[in-house]
Amino acid sequence: MASVTEFFGKPLEAINVGLAGFARSLESQGVPVTEVDFRPPPFDVSRLVTTPTGADVEAANREAVRRIMSGRANVVGLARARDVVPGMHERVILHAGPPITWDRMCGPVRGAVIGACLYEGWADTAEEAAAMAARGDVTFDPCHHHHTVGPMAGIVSPSMPVWIVENSAFGNRAFCTMNEGLGKVLRFGAFAPEVLERLRWMENTLYPVLDKALRSIPEGIDLKAMIAQALYMGDECHNRNRAGTSLFFRTIAPALARTCPDRETLAKVLEFIDANDHFFLNLSMPAAKVLTEPAEGIEGSSIVTTMARNGTDFGIRIAGLPGRWFTAQAGKVKGLFFPGFSEADANRDLGDSTITETAGFGGMAMACAPAIVKFVGGRPQDAIDATREMYEICAAEHDTFLVPSLDFRGTPVGIDVRRVAETGLSPRLNTGIAHKDPGIGQVGAGLLRAPISCFVDALTALAGQDQ
Amino acid sequence: MASVTEFFGKPLEAINVGLAGFARSLESQGVPVTEVDFRPPPFDVSRLVTTPTGADVEAANREAVRRIMSGRANVVGLARARDVVPGMHERVILHAGPPITWDRMCGPVRGAVIGACLYEGWADTAEEAAAMAARGDVTFDPCHHHHTVGPMAGIVSPSMPVWIVENSAFGNRAFCTMNEGLGKVLRFGAFAPEVLERLRWMENTLYPVLDKALRSIPEGIDLKAMIAQALYMGDECHNRNRAGTSLFFRTIAPALARTCPDRETLAKVLEFIDANDHFFLNLSMPAAKVLTEPAEGIEGSSIVTTMARNGTDFGIRIAGLPGRWFTAQAGKVKGLFFPGFSEADANRDLGDSTITETAGFGGMAMACAPAIVKFVGGRPQDAIDATREMYEICAAEHDTFLVPSLDFRGTPVGIDVRRVAETGLSPRLNTGIAHKDPGIGQVGAGLLRAPISCFVDALTALAGQDQ
Repeated sequence: MASVTEFFGKPLEAINVGLAGFARSLESQGVPVTEVDFRPPPFDVSRLVTTPTGADVEAANREAVRRIMSGRANVVGLARARDVVPGMHERVILHAGPPITWDRMCGPVRGAVIGACLYEGWADTAEEAAAMAARGDVTFDPCHHHHTVGPMAGIVSPSMPVWIVENSAFGNRAFCTMNEGLGKVLRFGAFAPEVLERLRWMENTLYPVLDKALRSIPEGIDLKAMIAQALYMGDECHNRNRAGTSLFFRTIAPALARTCPDRETLAKVLEFIDANDHFFLNLSMPAAKVLTEPAEGIEGSSIVTTMARNGTDFGIRIAGLPGRWFTAQAGKVKGLFFPGFSEADANRDLGDSTITETAGFGGMAMACAPAIVKFVGGRPQDAIDATREMYEICAAEHDTFLVPSLDFRGTPVGIDVRRVAETGLSPRLNTGIAHKDPGIGQVGAGLLRAPISCFVDALTALAGQDQ
Repeated sequence: MASVTEFFGKPLEAINVGLAGFARSLESQGVPVTEVDFRPPPFDVSRLVTTPTGADVEAANREAVRRIMSGRANVVGLARARDVVPGMHERVILHAGPPITWDRMCGPVRGAVIGACLYEGWADTAEEAAAMAARGDVTFDPCHHHHTVGPMAGIVSPSMPVWIVENSAFGNRAFCTMNEGLGKVLRFGAFAPEVLERLRWMENTLYPVLDKALRSIPEGIDLKAMIAQALYMGDECHNRNRAGTSLFFRTIAPALARTCPDRETLAKVLEFIDANDHFFLNLSMPAAKVLTEPAEGIEGSSIVTTMARNGTDFGIRIAGLPGRWFTAQAGKVKGLFFPGFSEADANRDLGDSTITETAGFGGMAMACAPAIVKFVGGRPQDAIDATREMYEICAAEHDTFLVPSLDFRGTPVGIDVRRVAETGLSPRLNTGIAHKDPGIGQVGAGLLRAPISCFVDALTALAGQDQ
């Protein structure tokens, strides 16, 4: 490889501050972060200041976080994916994470693909569906290529209704299916008759009722304000969504009462939402997506705009190189398992839900949600420490998402691949765990870190050193 | 006064452990409680072991906290006070706090009494109502003498609907009116036409709709479980009730949908609850009342079963002397004031809502609710410290109400007047602030401590030294 100065024609400024980030933390918090697993910077241009094309990285990053923080995220209605998701045609299936082919897909994604083929009526049996998919009769594409996000397997097929979330500050939209609940559900790879029956009820009853109510509310429902409130109420809005679900329920219920003519249907819709504390996840995710997308394409920015997993690969994209995925093997989740299941049953890390961390909540806001450790493991102090550590790798503190227990400090927002490379700290994630085989469903929830090599690879590419 | 041994005929064991309580705290928390304002024990029998009648105080207190913790609190319906509150006849008005006569009533209580007389149609003007009250045409009685609690002025007149909360473990019931919202409301002393109009809508529309829905739910709604959940969601269920209100809303909404035939009425009922994050206060209070009452009358117990203020006096009752109030002047609240108001406008401490602290939440659970400091003042660390300090004066840690941020430690429960006397620490309270004049309403919210002399007086009486 040519040296940096020869290669770019202009000198790169590389400042290796070593432990400075760590010291910064101590200074601002007045408390030692004892659990930081500090490793030496794995990449020698971790303080990239100017890109080969002359872009000022700091200025680009300031613009990226300005856009991420200043956006809006209002859910305005729902529609079938085929009618509203750009590029969605009759035989396309969207999936979570970076691009992947059928032969490399993990069990739960295959299970959910089979479920979608059955749900759409493209196949009558699981075997037929699998054969179709293997033959290439279905086109696979990442949700993220279609302004869409999906938790776990993230499967979206043309008939599935999706939430429509608008960012009126930047004029973009994002989409996500409705949350089905926990346990035996499509997104965890299950495709039993009751899974498909629930999806059909969601399409035929839940969707039109919710859509009608939402469209009766001028400007829809402000999810950004709701997330900010939920962070005051013990959620981090990724794996704990009880407050978000409650606030959404409160806000939409009067509109539902006015627009749903049948009382029993109304009661069933309300019960369905009330029965599922993760209902809000499929709203917090497209909110995160719609807030982060405007940062895509800012030349020279080293801020992460996408983190996503397909259960085989983990991938990121950065603002300065929006078209490129940087991938590594998806990690193993350390977690709490449902009775009867163990780590041996667990699929690797899966889903687009890490868009929440990308937007400055989820794992970034663990300190808001000490009770989440009952679901994902660890102790409440670990939740506080997780947020504190994430300030090390983020470019800003959020002006709207605040952490009461940290004296209303803003959440860490805008993961900077330079800081990840510099500190050796990769983003902390919390996640559900799917069974590794198709057709089973969720087996637990837990914690892990993103694989660091993606971040180093993205930085290498931004520095023009990947040729 | 006779000496202790002479007076009782048998020796009293008095152990003065001095700083032991403080040391206990350090030991169990591993963190110094730096803000403890320690004062020497103000009373020399602060370690009363046996009462003059031979009751074992420790054993009695164990029974008291066992009863307080093992009760249930299900809201099963509503009824007009006259139809359900024992001892409520046609010209009685219940008020918050210890007994008081019209001539000593503070402004906001007088305002609320005037409002109740107008609401009941007993008077046509405020002047007429005040004259009636002064003449003795109305009987005043504390809510607490009728298994009832009321926030702030706590006024309950015969036509007002009250929640019915049942403790099936002990067979007792408690009552409380519905929460009207914030600002210009009866409980803060306002009686303008819009205040009375709202009360009438609550009586004629809200009450029957909610009652019908509740009675359709077998066993009603479990408020104890809901409080436990709300403590995981940033509420302390006294001055922060956003989570409790949300959870109650979620739980009752499907039943409302099934039992309310008119869609617009249903929508208005849902909107009324959604618009008031304090709606749940009037459920958490009777829950606390129904949980603490079974401890009343346990011979020899020094556990507080009632703390209440009428805006003039602060009063407590203890389990071992259930019929007696021990009172002192109500305190001044240090708080945050609404724009246009200041401390000069503030009435003294007011309301029965300190039943929440008595039952082991509210001020006892401040550590659950760091965001509350935006409403009552202080910093999030103060909220943590407040709970930590309260372990010093409580007999137990709750087995159901837990504090996530303190590693799921139980909230302090069962205020022991001996410990208050020993440590010089009186219970910390957080509260709304009423304007001192009748007819105005709420002007802020804040923090204070209960006057310590009530606790010393109760202990003195339990020791038989008050003659």
